[in-house]
Amino acid sequence: MSERKLTLEQQSEFHYTIGPYAEPAIEVEPGETISVETVDAFGGRISSEDDIPSEALAGAGLNPQSGPIHVEGAEKGDTLQVTIESIEPRGPQPRGKTCLVPYFGGLTATDRTAMLHDHLPERVNMSEVTTDGVEWREEITIPYEPFIGTIATAPELDSVSSLTPFKHGGNMDLPDVRPGNTLYLPVNTEGALLYLGDCHAAQGDGELCGVAVEIPTITTITVDVIKDKEIEWPRVESDEYVMTVGSIRPLEDAARIAYAELIKWMVDDYGFETYDAYMFLSQVGSVRLGNMVDPNYTIGASVPKEYL
Amino acid sequence: MSERKLTLEQQSEFHYTIGPYAEPAIEVEPGETISVETVDAFGGRISSEDDIPSEALAGAGLNPQSGPIHVEGAEKGDTLQVTIESIEPRGPQPRGKTCLVPYFGGLTATDRTAMLHDHLPERVNMSEVTTDGVEWREEITIPYEPFIGTIATAPELDSVSSLTPFKHGGNMDLPDVRPGNTLYLPVNTEGALLYLGDCHAAQGDGELCGVAVEIPTITTITVDVIKDKEIEWPRVESDEYVMTVGSIRPLEDAARIAYAELIKWMVDDYGFETYDAYMFLSQVGSVRLGNMVDPNYTIGASVPKEYL
Amino acid sequence: MSERKLTLEQQSEFHYTIGPYAEPAIEVEPGETISVETVDAFGGRISSEDDIPSEALAGAGLNPQSGPIHVEGAEKGDTLQVTIESIEPRGPQPRGKTCLVPYFGGLTATDRTAMLHDHLPERVNMSEVTTDGVEWREEITIPYEPFIGTIATAPELDSVSSLTPFKHGGNMDLPDVRPGNTLYLPVNTEGALLYLGDCHAAQGDGELCGVAVEIPTITTITVDVIKDKEIEWPRVESDEYVMTVGSIRPLEDAARIAYAELIKWMVDDYGFETYDAYMFLSQVGSVRLGNMVDPNYTIGASVPKEYL
Amino acid sequence: MSERKLTLEQQSEFHYTIGPYAEPAIEVEPGETISVETVDAFGGRISSEDDIPSEALAGAGLNPQSGPIHVEGAEKGDTLQVTIESIEPRGPQPRGKTCLVPYFGGLTATDRTAMLHDHLPERVNMSEVTTDGVEWREEITIPYEPFIGTIATAPELDSVSSLTPFKHGGNMDLPDVRPGNTLYLPVNTEGALLYLGDCHAAQGDGELCGVAVEIPTITTITVDVIKDKEIEWPRVESDEYVMTVGSIRPLEDAARIAYAELIKWMVDDYGFETYDAYMFLSQVGSVRLGNMVDPNYTIGASVPKEYL
Repeated sequence: MSERKLTLEQQSEFHYTIGPYAEPAIEVEPGETISVETVDAFGGRISSEDDIPSEALAGAGLNPQSGPIHVEGAEKGDTLQVTIESIEPRGPQPRGKTCLVPYFGGLTATDRTAMLHDHLPERVNMSEVTTDGVEWREEITIPYEPFIGTIATAPELDSVSSLTPFKHGGNMDLPDVRPGNTLYLPVNTEGALLYLGDCHAAQGDGELCGVAVEIPTITTITVDVIKDKEIEWPRVESDEYVMTVGSIRPLEDAARIAYAELIKWMVDDYGFETYDAYMFLSQVGSVRLGNMVDPNYTIGASVPKEYL
Repeated sequence: MSERKLTLEQQSEFHYTIGPYAEPAIEVEPGETISVETVDAFGGRISSEDDIPSEALAGAGLNPQSGPIHVEGAEKGDTLQVTIESIEPRGPQPRGKTCLVPYFGGLTATDRTAMLHDHLPERVNMSEVTTDGVEWREEITIPYEPFIGTIATAPELDSVSSLTPFKHGGNMDLPDVRPGNTLYLPVNTEGALLYLGDCHAAQGDGELCGVAVEIPTITTITVDVIKDKEIEWPRVESDEYVMTVGSIRPLEDAARIAYAELIKWMVDDYGFETYDAYMFLSQVGSVRLGNMVDPNYTIGASVPKEYL
Repeated sequence: MSERKLTLEQQSEFHYTIGPYAEPAIEVEPGETISVETVDAFGGRISSEDDIPSEALAGAGLNPQSGPIHVEGAEKGDTLQVTIESIEPRGPQPRGKTCLVPYFGGLTATDRTAMLHDHLPERVNMSEVTTDGVEWREEITIPYEPFIGTIATAPELDSVSSLTPFKHGGNMDLPDVRPGNTLYLPVNTEGALLYLGDCHAAQGDGELCGVAVEIPTITTITVDVIKDKEIEWPRVESDEYVMTVGSIRPLEDAARIAYAELIKWMVDDYGFETYDAYMFLSQVGSVRLGNMVDPNYTIGASVPKEYL
Repeated sequence: MSERKLTLEQQSEFHYTIGPYAEPAIEVEPGETISVETVDAFGGRISSEDDIPSEALAGAGLNPQSGPIHVEGAEKGDTLQVTIESIEPRGPQPRGKTCLVPYFGGLTATDRTAMLHDHLPERVNMSEVTTDGVEWREEITIPYEPFIGTIATAPELDSVSSLTPFKHGGNMDLPDVRPGNTLYLPVNTEGALLYLGDCHAAQGDGELCGVAVEIPTITTITVDVIKDKEIEWPRVESDEYVMTVGSIRPLEDAARIAYAELIKWMVDDYGFETYDAYMFLSQVGSVRLGNMVDPNYTIGASVPKEYL
């Protein structure tokens, strides 16, 4: 099928909550490929190392989302399949922004882990980003390993902050949601209503300071609908592994969800017996820490396909 | 002012998500008193000790809410003051329902604390409830100590499951939200949009099995608006104490939020210095565990007014 | 029987670890009453509001314990019964010390909840303590409600820091361990080897800043042995209630332990059926937060005796 | 220097607690290489798929440790450097044991996460283990990737169960403690007193069911002492990365410790500024989940050496 586009102009208004209450920005057929112009997690409001994040970001939402994309024929009880085709950085250099935001991050008091400390210093790091690499400092270039930080289908009744990952996907900050891989999300409402944004040029495990190398992009995905296939939590598939994703606090519960879902997958689709899968994953399971900074923490648990 | 009524007929449709997207069920003025006919947390679908909860509750929402009540003049940045006047049980006896629902409760695996166990047995306990007491068993009557389990203002953009407590209030299951006390909630949207339901005839600390003595009621409240007063989390005031409420996981973070908010209150309104308040609460602070079973756990931290 | 004494002179060396490797400071018979001269949690090294805790406490242990008391005939598999007879403050006024210690407390980064913040300010509050009250400030007197902060039997093989509460008791900081109540501890080794110290003149729920009103005392207890009665976690009994104690992180797991142990107690000794007890505690159970600051957090769960 | 041996015969009695109270099994000089005959985590008491773990393991300790190895000249305030030279499986085939033990594992209620569930089924899986691979099932062979599950220096005063990881190392179950890598442990007592055991032929992230492929081994290590170098938590170094290790509950606190220690290392030894390191690790840090089943959970955080 032809490639569709969702440009900044078509989008016009971005979303800070992910739910069934917004009008679709675009309607597509199953199997279609869509190129989406995403903005960065700060909506472009950070553009210099002299910016003070708390001032630059005051009075506006965080983590603006493109979409929702209405997928024809998707209904509650189906699964949405999203293949990530490519993620191209766009916009003027330096395009990559990392910063320290007061009371947000993995090694600071937050509004959830409340303490009496003053906030940590504010900082901004800007970096040149091309598909060849991220120039973190003049002397340090790290690989360009882009992925979609936030991507979700609408819940059925609730509308969830774009900062929060949960069963519907959301702000998972999981590097496995990258070009070449396929993401599966539960469909909870008519048309699935897919939102996405918050693309990263690079990110370590846990997104420690709360911010990756944030970039605006052209992100190209192909969507499809698997009818009458229900999943409770997101799943990822690469050439090498299958992965399940859990997002909750405390972090051990995210790991429990991810592994319990992985066992369910192995039992349902690959003929494993529950307790054999449990003992086997104890030897060959892999865990990826997505984020340890968002309202829910995210863990992906995976098993190599060669064993399935 | 005259007393207003929000009857079952006026309500007609109950809400399972708390957000800014529903039409008001009633519009009131600041200072008005409203009598609300609430349904129980199961929407009346459990009515016999022979019921099997997972069957009786299948295919419908949990924790139906009355409202939203639109309060004239309330705007983002204000505080909504809700005085609980009375909670009268209603409906045919036995009115009180407690039960064990699969994968829900404090001593069971859940969808968040995922494990490989089969669910615990299902059970229903029905009890006669009057204002004189709750007849738990023929030989055991416990005091009628009613309170509102779920009460919340609408978030600004998000819509939160009625099962979840957070900054907006919600399913706190905190016995201090009882007749004679006053609850303060942040106003996040025009008209405040107050939801309530899930009244309990009695409940222990933590709501251990996930279910209190659930009853339909006539709950009477008086609402008022405190202009230009911003609070981040719910607060409760009784004749004897002031209390702040935190709802999050893990439970220590709920306690941290509650105590940090209490210190803020003591500093802002009662002239304490931050670290003096911190050391003083270490000697005289009280903690009430609301729930340890909902999507977020709830703790109220309080200090006697005599020390303020 | 006659009353025995364990004086400072007899004790000579205090203990900072609770295990089976120390020589008994005193040997007693079951049924005997012992008066113990305890030192405060700082070993007396804080004595003025001008002290800087990190300096005053440098190079020495925290939470010195008296004992161990060897109880004749106690063996692994028994339960030690400790009735708290009285707690008298001793030493020159002002006897009560509260302070802020760097990286210790409920609303600060710690060595376990590691962050990048500088530590909070250091503070000392001294107070006059008599059995009539604790003079917190000139204008604020709070009730004298003394209890034993740390009390434990030796584990079988391990030796546990006196700062840590666990199955053997330890630094529970639970106000229910007070005069008039009885504490039950598991016996893990020959002679039980009871340690105690860290008495508090007053403390709020959670011991928020990490420090109560710490005092040296004469603490009088009566010990007895219940043969062939195994308990896994500490228990407390007052005239009005029975309570079980769980100490672990995160805090919800402490609550789970306490309530699960309480159900076990109600089933074993009071004829309840497991799931009835579970549903009933959901209505009448009480939770006391001991501490939210020590290496393990402590919760006591109780039920009124009138229902047993 | 010559290679020393610590055989089963020399060891005679194994240790189930790690502390300063045991006599050294062997005394070595800094720089010496020692070959240790370790027993498996079950002390060989599981040897057939027909064994029932709860019966086979009743009445005896778990996780027996070899040692302690006294390292001449090591004193409190030093760091012990342990280079893992090789890990050879030993004993009759099938040598590898995995099993499900009641109330132990990542997806089950435990004595710490107490619930009312019956325990999961018991299972044993035996596997042939050679340096060529682990024959999990006839049709599935997984790589032989051995490491030391438990290795620790003695704490100064406490004695810690061999099942528990903490600052001294212990039951970290971290696959990075493998041949070719170097482990650094704090020295807390004269002679360091190094214990080790619990070797694994293979293990996935988190050791999900609580048990890896447990094997008896000949484990060869070289020990050395870095004088006057204090570390608070274990560290690992490979050719490619440096890693810090945190062990605590909840799991996010283990991640916080590991990353905070890694920042400290980068600042102290590699010239980074604190907040630059924080932001940089947000892009390039890696997290390895050691275990999510032991009394403390273990996370290793690492950064590639190429960036240092």
